[in-house]
Amino acid sequence: MTEQGAGTRRGRGRRPAGEVRAAVLAATGRLLLEEGLPAVTFDRVAKEAGSSKVTLYKWWPSPGALAAEAYFARSAPVLEFPDTGDLRADLVSQLTAFVRLMTREGAGVPVSQIVGAAQTDPYVAAAWVEGYARPRRDLGLARLRTAQQSGQLRPDADLHLLVDQLWGVCYHRLLVLREPFDETLVPRLVDQALRGAAPEG
Amino acid sequence: MTEQGAGTRRGRGRRPAGEVRAAVLAATGRLLLEEGLPAVTFDRVAKEAGSSKVTLYKWWPSPGALAAEAYFARSAPVLEFPDTGDLRADLVSQLTAFVRLMTREGAGVPVSQIVGAAQTDPYVAAAWVEGYARPRRDLGLARLRTAQQSGQLRPDADLHLLVDQLWGVCYHRLLVLREPFDETLVPRLVDQALRGAAPEG
Repeated sequence: MTEQGAGTRRGRGRRPAGEVRAAVLAATGRLLLEEGLPAVTFDRVAKEAGSSKVTLYKWWPSPGALAAEAYFARSAPVLEFPDTGDLRADLVSQLTAFVRLMTREGAGVPVSQIVGAAQTDPYVAAAWVEGYARPRRDLGLARLRTAQQSGQLRPDADLHLLVDQLWGVCYHRLLVLREPFDETLVPRLVDQALRGAAPEG
Repeated sequence: MTEQGAGTRRGRGRRPAGEVRAAVLAATGRLLLEEGLPAVTFDRVAKEAGSSKVTLYKWWPSPGALAAEAYFARSAPVLEFPDTGDLRADLVSQLTAFVRLMTREGAGVPVSQIVGAAQTDPYVAAAWVEGYARPRRDLGLARLRTAQQSGQLRPDADLHLLVDQLWGVCYHRLLVLREPFDETLVPRLVDQALRGAAPEG
């Protein structure tokens, strides 16, 4: 056996590209959640993932772009959209997972750093928007469309707006008001989006 | 008469502090909307406002903090909350002014730069949150409270959430999805927040 430290290349052969890519995304996701966006440098990631910096430069235009993609990969399993047929229950369960990820599981800081950087760095913006924000929005839309087809949403409900009125609320608190929030908000949020704030009738 | 160029001190005496402050905020607001946050440096502002840089350093901890305060001063007259007694009409009119300011009147770029910087610069964060975001949220809340008292909102409606579900939607598109939007969105946005997305009953 050859000696193997953590984070060094295994053996002398090349690892398949898919494996390297997965290792890079995993290492980046870990760094991002544990230490925040400033820790995601190509140097650090190459060391932690046991890959070469040349590879990183070849595959990602900037560390911020890599960070956005890694966040998508890392959060996808947590943020799955259940479909039990009960829209309210499914929204409460998905949004609870989302808010927990942002708060207790510490994603709020790196996410706000990525979105912050996206406002002035076009590479981060493209990676965040095309690699995370819009694909996640589309997954939400798909679940809402099923609910609309089964009559749980008004036929004329604007589903894009409904996404904004659910997940956008959390981003508004995180980024704009910079106010603490937790998952106890979620049932009220879902009910108010579904029933409205005005009296019935 | 002494010669007076634009942007130089008038006469040899000191201007009252209130006048200097107003000139600084006006010059900063102009720079911010016309050229964006990077144009707001203490050098540029001092030159445009005819004030000394020492004064700026004394009054503001950073150019970003000055920019956030200037944006509040600049936008306040545009963003007044009407109270005609008709909540829906008043929300449509205020949000239309807000969306126009963000889009046609060009505030979207500087606002996203300020909020972006706020994610990593604590001075900008404090100035934005305490000098703009929360005071504006409180003005919205006050109008919603009047409406709730007159029975135009459910007694159990969460007014903080309603603010997030109205203005937060616009910030979500601006900052997170980075998608163009315009004021044609507003009536749908208000109706969906008031009536909800679920079928009645």
